[in-house]
Amino acid sequence: MGFSFFASRAAARFLEDIRRPAGVSTAALLLTAASGGGIVAYADSSRAEEAPEPPPRKKKVVVLGTGWAGTSFLKNLDSSRYEVKVISPRNYFAFTPLLPSVTCGTVEARSVVEPIRRMFEKKGKDVAYYEAECLKIDPTKKAVHCRSAVGTNLDGNGDFMLDYDYLVVALGAAVNTFNTPGVMEHCHFLKEVEDAQKIRKSVIDCFERASIPNISEEEKRKILHFVIIGGGPTGVEFAAELHDFLVEDLVKLYPAIEQFVKITIIQSGEHILNTFDQRIAVFAESKFQRDGIELSTGFRVIKVSDDSITVKCKSSGVETLVPYGMAIWSAGIGTRPVITDFMNQVGRANDVPWQLMNG
Amino acid sequence: MGFSFFASRAAARFLEDIRRPAGVSTAALLLTAASGGGIVAYADSSRAEEAPEPPPRKKKVVVLGTGWAGTSFLKNLDSSRYEVKVISPRNYFAFTPLLPSVTCGTVEARSVVEPIRRMFEKKGKDVAYYEAECLKIDPTKKAVHCRSAVGTNLDGNGDFMLDYDYLVVALGAAVNTFNTPGVMEHCHFLKEVEDAQKIRKSVIDCFERASIPNISEEEKRKILHFVIIGGGPTGVEFAAELHDFLVEDLVKLYPAIEQFVKITIIQSGEHILNTFDQRIAVFAESKFQRDGIELSTGFRVIKVSDDSITVKCKSSGVETLVPYGMAIWSAGIGTRPVITDFMNQVGRANDVPWQLMNG
Repeated sequence: MGFSFFASRAAARFLEDIRRPAGVSTAALLLTAASGGGIVAYADSSRAEEAPEPPPRKKKVVVLGTGWAGTSFLKNLDSSRYEVKVISPRNYFAFTPLLPSVTCGTVEARSVVEPIRRMFEKKGKDVAYYEAECLKIDPTKKAVHCRSAVGTNLDGNGDFMLDYDYLVVALGAAVNTFNTPGVMEHCHFLKEVEDAQKIRKSVIDCFERASIPNISEEEKRKILHFVIIGGGPTGVEFAAELHDFLVEDLVKLYPAIEQFVKITIIQSGEHILNTFDQRIAVFAESKFQRDGIELSTGFRVIKVSDDSITVKCKSSGVETLVPYGMAIWSAGIGTRPVITDFMNQVGRANDVPWQLMNG
Repeated sequence: MGFSFFASRAAARFLEDIRRPAGVSTAALLLTAASGGGIVAYADSSRAEEAPEPPPRKKKVVVLGTGWAGTSFLKNLDSSRYEVKVISPRNYFAFTPLLPSVTCGTVEARSVVEPIRRMFEKKGKDVAYYEAECLKIDPTKKAVHCRSAVGTNLDGNGDFMLDYDYLVVALGAAVNTFNTPGVMEHCHFLKEVEDAQKIRKSVIDCFERASIPNISEEEKRKILHFVIIGGGPTGVEFAAELHDFLVEDLVKLYPAIEQFVKITIIQSGEHILNTFDQRIAVFAESKFQRDGIELSTGFRVIKVSDDSITVKCKSSGVETLVPYGMAIWSAGIGTRPVITDFMNQVGRANDVPWQLMNG
């Protein structure tokens, strides 16, 4: 996986830096944006405060995120030498490549997650974990502003700050809708375990909705049209899982509406899986055609409403309405606002050297 | 189980009735309220419309509910002889005695449910199922008003009516808070699979909340105080499961806050499990005392706020505030409004003979 590779490089670089003799100040910020969203960074802006005698206390390492990058980094860190604090709104690591299988019940959600505290306990790591979200990174004060993800109703003390000597930013990527209207409101995503569980429920809901009395054939066709926007690995894997789920399980339970079921992949490029070797794309496309999965390549999604998707043919410019029952957006990822904000600060302040590694 | 026993009696009676020669009108309404909530009823008000020649069409049987009573009834019904329609907002049967184990992850939610359509498919039943809620029973028109439980946004056609010759009402019971203020808003219940999943999440959330920085010891004690209101079988089984979950799993993952964890059962009677043989109650009480589970017997809950429960000592009349982190209400069940409404109608109209069997 690209993730762990980059995370490990970041970790190695970090360890190399902090093993320098005391007093030799380190001042580095490393940002790794792996494809798929792993972002690793560490910052040390202590150059200005260089002291002849280093304080005897352990250096504070704060890690933001418990995904691929964060957990890989922690695996290689000797937690006895640092005061380590981990912040993440999820108290587990999720094995994301299996999320498409969770959507269709092939794999149980519980099987793809590992509680982060259990990971620490197993490895004997002395690490403090807080279930919270990082709202803001303050590189000047060397502190992160956090908010508890588990309720702030207790005397309003859900907010807290943690200061750091080293900061590892491994927050992953956010969904990027490219500001396409309606996507955030009406589409499912497939980045988190909860997303996969919601998709599973939504697929079954579509079958139940289409089974209610007084539904016209046209409506049944609409409700049972599953649309995947984006023909990258996530969308393609989901399409394949969904196809098997429909063919092997659901049509047996809903035989009366089998004929109305359809899966479509909308892809703006000319081929699905276009970042892979063309033979893979050709194989997947012919397999999907045999399975009856429709490929709408060369179409760009320009709007999503509650029951239809407006697509534009890239060659002809003609716009068409695609009625749908459930839609998944797997067409883009982007940078989280807290990271954008942090990078702007670092760029503006210009007092912290930084380096961007884009995998 | 009381449920299946009563359901089977209802089914037997039903089958006996409908096996009478055609033309001999049946007019019976049977209501079985088994302890725990199974309600089975069937109604046939066709006496007034007696016809010399019965229509050749199959008689319509509508079953409301897919719990113990509804599924037991369906198991014994020859679906080839009737036009059978089943209405329930849950498209699965849940093995409710295992719900306390689901709250603590001992048993996976998926293991205690069976999709109702799969049950029909396995048994070769020709039965139509609609995922919907019954809003109103109209015994005069012999029809049920239903609303789709899977979204009504499709041209507002979520509502529909089904007419019946025989109606089986197996809706189960609702939670009864005895109008205690705050219970509905702040307490968890343990009647549905979703309840069990929410409880599991809530227990872990309490541990995460108590681990956030800047929480006083008093607050930690409050957050980690798990209160069970009602010392019947559900409450007692949940207390035992929760105790094992805390002792065997959670304290290993949250060693720093182990000392603040407490479980309390509030019971208005003098003993827990007071519907059982006293030796069982004594055994459970002494086991709980050894385990450090506090029993507050002889206390009535009079109010629940977001962080404390007001209890009144039944002997002294003194009121006390009990701070808590999570509370479960397992102190009472009652009749669903749609059933109350139906029984009132039947009582008022007085044109349908009815019989109430209370197990």
